[in-house]
Amino acid sequence: MTYEIEIGRGKRGRRAYSLDDIAIVPSRRTRDPKDVSVSWQIDAYQFDMPVIAAPMDSVMSPATAITFGQLGGLGVLDLEGLWTRYEDPQPVLDEISALEASATSPAATRRLQELYEAPVQAELITSRLAEIRAAGVTVAGSLTPQRTQQFYKTVLAAGVDIFVIRGTTVSAEHVSKSHEPLNLKQFIYELDVPVIVGGAAGYTPALHLMRTGAAGVLVGFGGGATTTTRRALGIHAPMASAISDVAAARRDYMDESGGRYVHVIADGGMGSSGDIIKAIAMGADAVMLGSALARAEEAPGQGWHWGAEAHHAEMPRGDRVKLNTVGSLQEVLFGPAHHANGTSNLIGALRRSMATTGYSDIKEFQRVEVVVSPLEGF
Amino acid sequence: MTYEIEIGRGKRGRRAYSLDDIAIVPSRRTRDPKDVSVSWQIDAYQFDMPVIAAPMDSVMSPATAITFGQLGGLGVLDLEGLWTRYEDPQPVLDEISALEASATSPAATRRLQELYEAPVQAELITSRLAEIRAAGVTVAGSLTPQRTQQFYKTVLAAGVDIFVIRGTTVSAEHVSKSHEPLNLKQFIYELDVPVIVGGAAGYTPALHLMRTGAAGVLVGFGGGATTTTRRALGIHAPMASAISDVAAARRDYMDESGGRYVHVIADGGMGSSGDIIKAIAMGADAVMLGSALARAEEAPGQGWHWGAEAHHAEMPRGDRVKLNTVGSLQEVLFGPAHHANGTSNLIGALRRSMATTGYSDIKEFQRVEVVVSPLEGF
Amino acid sequence: MTYEIEIGRGKRGRRAYSLDDIAIVPSRRTRDPKDVSVSWQIDAYQFDMPVIAAPMDSVMSPATAITFGQLGGLGVLDLEGLWTRYEDPQPVLDEISALEASATSPAATRRLQELYEAPVQAELITSRLAEIRAAGVTVAGSLTPQRTQQFYKTVLAAGVDIFVIRGTTVSAEHVSKSHEPLNLKQFIYELDVPVIVGGAAGYTPALHLMRTGAAGVLVGFGGGATTTTRRALGIHAPMASAISDVAAARRDYMDESGGRYVHVIADGGMGSSGDIIKAIAMGADAVMLGSALARAEEAPGQGWHWGAEAHHAEMPRGDRVKLNTVGSLQEVLFGPAHHANGTSNLIGALRRSMATTGYSDIKEFQRVEVVVSPLEGF
Amino acid sequence: MTYEIEIGRGKRGRRAYSLDDIAIVPSRRTRDPKDVSVSWQIDAYQFDMPVIAAPMDSVMSPATAITFGQLGGLGVLDLEGLWTRYEDPQPVLDEISALEASATSPAATRRLQELYEAPVQAELITSRLAEIRAAGVTVAGSLTPQRTQQFYKTVLAAGVDIFVIRGTTVSAEHVSKSHEPLNLKQFIYELDVPVIVGGAAGYTPALHLMRTGAAGVLVGFGGGATTTTRRALGIHAPMASAISDVAAARRDYMDESGGRYVHVIADGGMGSSGDIIKAIAMGADAVMLGSALARAEEAPGQGWHWGAEAHHAEMPRGDRVKLNTVGSLQEVLFGPAHHANGTSNLIGALRRSMATTGYSDIKEFQRVEVVVSPLEGF
Repeated sequence: MTYEIEIGRGKRGRRAYSLDDIAIVPSRRTRDPKDVSVSWQIDAYQFDMPVIAAPMDSVMSPATAITFGQLGGLGVLDLEGLWTRYEDPQPVLDEISALEASATSPAATRRLQELYEAPVQAELITSRLAEIRAAGVTVAGSLTPQRTQQFYKTVLAAGVDIFVIRGTTVSAEHVSKSHEPLNLKQFIYELDVPVIVGGAAGYTPALHLMRTGAAGVLVGFGGGATTTTRRALGIHAPMASAISDVAAARRDYMDESGGRYVHVIADGGMGSSGDIIKAIAMGADAVMLGSALARAEEAPGQGWHWGAEAHHAEMPRGDRVKLNTVGSLQEVLFGPAHHANGTSNLIGALRRSMATTGYSDIKEFQRVEVVVSPLEGF
Repeated sequence: MTYEIEIGRGKRGRRAYSLDDIAIVPSRRTRDPKDVSVSWQIDAYQFDMPVIAAPMDSVMSPATAITFGQLGGLGVLDLEGLWTRYEDPQPVLDEISALEASATSPAATRRLQELYEAPVQAELITSRLAEIRAAGVTVAGSLTPQRTQQFYKTVLAAGVDIFVIRGTTVSAEHVSKSHEPLNLKQFIYELDVPVIVGGAAGYTPALHLMRTGAAGVLVGFGGGATTTTRRALGIHAPMASAISDVAAARRDYMDESGGRYVHVIADGGMGSSGDIIKAIAMGADAVMLGSALARAEEAPGQGWHWGAEAHHAEMPRGDRVKLNTVGSLQEVLFGPAHHANGTSNLIGALRRSMATTGYSDIKEFQRVEVVVSPLEGF
Repeated sequence: MTYEIEIGRGKRGRRAYSLDDIAIVPSRRTRDPKDVSVSWQIDAYQFDMPVIAAPMDSVMSPATAITFGQLGGLGVLDLEGLWTRYEDPQPVLDEISALEASATSPAATRRLQELYEAPVQAELITSRLAEIRAAGVTVAGSLTPQRTQQFYKTVLAAGVDIFVIRGTTVSAEHVSKSHEPLNLKQFIYELDVPVIVGGAAGYTPALHLMRTGAAGVLVGFGGGATTTTRRALGIHAPMASAISDVAAARRDYMDESGGRYVHVIADGGMGSSGDIIKAIAMGADAVMLGSALARAEEAPGQGWHWGAEAHHAEMPRGDRVKLNTVGSLQEVLFGPAHHANGTSNLIGALRRSMATTGYSDIKEFQRVEVVVSPLEGF
Repeated sequence: MTYEIEIGRGKRGRRAYSLDDIAIVPSRRTRDPKDVSVSWQIDAYQFDMPVIAAPMDSVMSPATAITFGQLGGLGVLDLEGLWTRYEDPQPVLDEISALEASATSPAATRRLQELYEAPVQAELITSRLAEIRAAGVTVAGSLTPQRTQQFYKTVLAAGVDIFVIRGTTVSAEHVSKSHEPLNLKQFIYELDVPVIVGGAAGYTPALHLMRTGAAGVLVGFGGGATTTTRRALGIHAPMASAISDVAAARRDYMDESGGRYVHVIADGGMGSSGDIIKAIAMGADAVMLGSALARAEEAPGQGWHWGAEAHHAEMPRGDRVKLNTVGSLQEVLFGPAHHANGTSNLIGALRRSMATTGYSDIKEFQRVEVVVSPLEGF
């Protein structure tokens, strides 16, 4: 059923599309933006917008997680980042923002690697989560699969509403000869809180993750701007195709499970409001944003953005990226915009695009008509 | 019948083509350029060329509308622009032309937003249209759908020959819970003057607009050079495909209506004579030009070009663009050209292209053979 | 039989390919370059290489036509260029080479237009051709279709071996209400010398030209580097597809005519030896070179290259282009090369490519296997 | 069975894909990188990684061949390079690294041509190979087909474990009228050592090479960064398609020969770890690396990289390329990496990519799922 290209006589592969390859086309009546709902609910938690702030040190601190929650979204703190490695991470953040600017500087990469060698401290996980909880917003923290067994009891004891397990690639079954890997299905079954897990980028791996009992699946490998995974590992899953594949798995799993709806959350590579909108058009229920939020004045990255890959001990793959600060978090999300490039008033843009195409809620908007039209021809 | 690409397992979309993606190929006898007619008629109004000047402050003032009409085209004044907000807009135009040059300057965007906060004055609508009428050319003015009900009586009283309703996306039916939207069909039925309405970019929305009784439909969302709609809203309708789709709607509507011919007018993204020619080759009866005319010495933009999106209060999307002035309006349209880049002698180029491919009028030229050949390979 | 893309609901078109889009793939045994023949014969005239020097003032003077003939190719003098407008064109050539360098300079374009306003003088046609004939090489001159009736008797009286009629687009039938156009079929029938005519870029127009009795058909509209025809007129015929289409017309015409072989000559857009080789691979019998020869030290353009479009009175389309001089004409054609970019040793490269793919003559090499592989992915 | 594109009416060709056009997609469980084997065996020789160092003067000296062998790979010395032309090549290498930096400098090309005019000396072949053998690593040297008959006895007498015959294009049958060409089949039959031969880039020529008895076939024409073969000769075989075609020939030849497995070795154009990984994904058993290893501190090129084409006497095609040195050979292969661009820890990246996609050995990894996704859309 799926069309495959013959790359050579011995290999076939599908054509995959990035968000830049597609565009939305209005094909119905128009609607008043004020009549459009962009709210999102996962498990018992209700949000005013379908946006999760990515667990990255350049985006989320306890303070920005609180602000983001108060603005109506879900902020996730990286529980293996600087805030759980340092009692006071501010001097470290200041140093990182002052590192040599060159995107490919080996010296900056080396220093990042060193700064992240400080151990994660369980008591800091506890106190950071408590700080967020005290503010009255939904509490969420993330661990990598590698550290989940070591720290999840600390996390649960500290109290989280939503638990995020996020790695470059997470599969439902990890094979290892040297250690007992995390049994995701059993782990999620035993937890009391909803789990969001990923990234995955294909129909089959996403379907397997859905079968573990996850409430949501992250689509992607953690982003575009901050990763050079394709160059280093040859791995790349263009987002438009990946989201659409995982959305198909959601549909099939709903049938197979007798009605369980697993949320599809696009994660990475969405730098502008247009990208967010197109991710939803491809079938996402919500988006996890990194760089788009790192452009806020409050962002701890102070104009810089980096992911966990950037300081990987043996194979750093993501560069620190310099971003322009475009306004407060409030302005980035709701405007008013004074920039014409899709970096502020993200939610206003979503609302307007839905109104222009005549859709009134996020779920309905997943059906909007799109065309394939590479950006270069633009 | 229409071939769709599988973007992912859960989404399909058509491949859409921009004007840059196509080229015209001579495949018949040649013809003398002098024997070619480029005239155009809509309703009772006859023009020497199939060109409408876009209702944008950088292109049309009362004076340039008159000049443009005298040269054989149809000039449209923006009735919500500076000329109806300011008794004397010249100092405002001067200030805009002196704003910071950076295309993405937030300060320039902010100042544009402020300057357009001045209210539209009904009496200025009246006097500006009277000035054009006094010169003896066809009078046309444009309003957005949002302001049409407020000002259309003023416009009709002032006297227009052709009424233009132009917004980023205009649909035949707009849904709103908070206010009674414009009923286009009834509105057009009750008006005494022919109406041109748009933009629309697909077969179905254009067909619906044709059914409202419009004399012409604008294809597009208001342009290429001056909009960043794709980045901000994810919306984009590549022009070659859009024009061809709307031309198919014209054909089908003519059948359905028992012979009513609605004009298809390509609007936006045509920066060179080659683009104009290809728009007609795709099925357009006429083109609405912005940037191509903003390059004239007489253009009020004084070398700058901007659209209504550029000063949108909450979501500015189009940047002011610096253009090179290439000669008088006469030279831009009819030459002689001293530039080799398709920015002057636009009508001469159209005439020559039609002659080279052996076609003698605009309607016939819509059938010319084209190939798909992306510009990059050029 | 030919696959067409749906550009929109109202228009279809073929995908066309440029020479950059294709590449040659060795798929047979290899061969010794010394055993390869690159000779070419048209009518009674035999050449050591399948190369015609383009009738352009930046490429051909009487002196370079002689040198080129002595090196084994066919040089064609533009009989409407500077050499037939000025008794001594050298100061004019010197002035052109000193004009403002900017490729899009309107002042330079204006001055070019003025310099070419000097009238063509019949007696200069006579003396220039006599000069070439005196050197003992094959004599060829070119006129545009517009001037052919005015000057062809002068040309024949002066004595040419091969007559070239070359314009941007030449059709077998030109329609005009104001003057009697050239009847190509009758004209060629009455001439005593073989005629090469073009450019044409499609199966049908080329077939019609073949039926006029032409000995050879030029494929193309006069080039890549020196023309902006696509931007100005929207017209473009990607060369790989164009040559292949015309080669199919040659095959079908040979059948229809009972065996008359009309030569297919690729004209324009071949800037490197790889382009020349690919043109032959697509079915060309020979190539007409402009910019590739304008890089020779002897070229009258003195490092600049321009075509007739560049000084068109009403619609200049081709810019003067600055080229690097890479060596003597001998080195450009036969090496040794000290440049690694395919601009010298053109014939050596052709010979080597044929040897590497195992072909021993030009006609056979037209069957070599090619792949579609856009240059960007290179 | 193979889909062909109609380029024009007279020519068809397959669409061919480069490594940049494809990407790997994880679609299974994940695996521990420590459980992954990247070992490779050809004939009786076992290696810790599937990597051959290219016989190029900028990559391999006797010293680096030894180091490379000790690190677990196969180093091949160019037996027609500077080390067999000069008793002490160090001053020559120093001079080359100090030549004018411009990539297209004719003066640098001329000087390279001169330096390689020094004759190859048989006694230097003997002593260089003896030096490598003394270190206890697998000994391999390469000759071009042109010189194989002249020097192979010297090479065999000196003692090699693996013999490499490498030229731009090598076919199983070379035709020449002027001299008796090398009969590869007989030659390989008579030799006592396994032979690796190439480059070839298609199913048929590779199948013919397999039938000569070769132990391995090189896929490619010697690279991407250092060759301008496409521009000069029009010849190009995009690597993803080429490797896959040759892998299909391996499969069919194994059937035809009753089980003989000929190794497919991708040669050229792999500048990053991602490229290496994708080459294996397309079906390669091993890769031959040039530029990727020329970035090591020990590389004789001292930050420069050039191939035999760069100093070809009549038709230099490859430019000298300036590369950044990124660390020791140990770091280039095994890390730790302080660069985020895929130029160091090549083997670690391979191991990680295999683990992420769930494969445990090189042969199995050839089946990994890939998508077509051009790099530009990235």
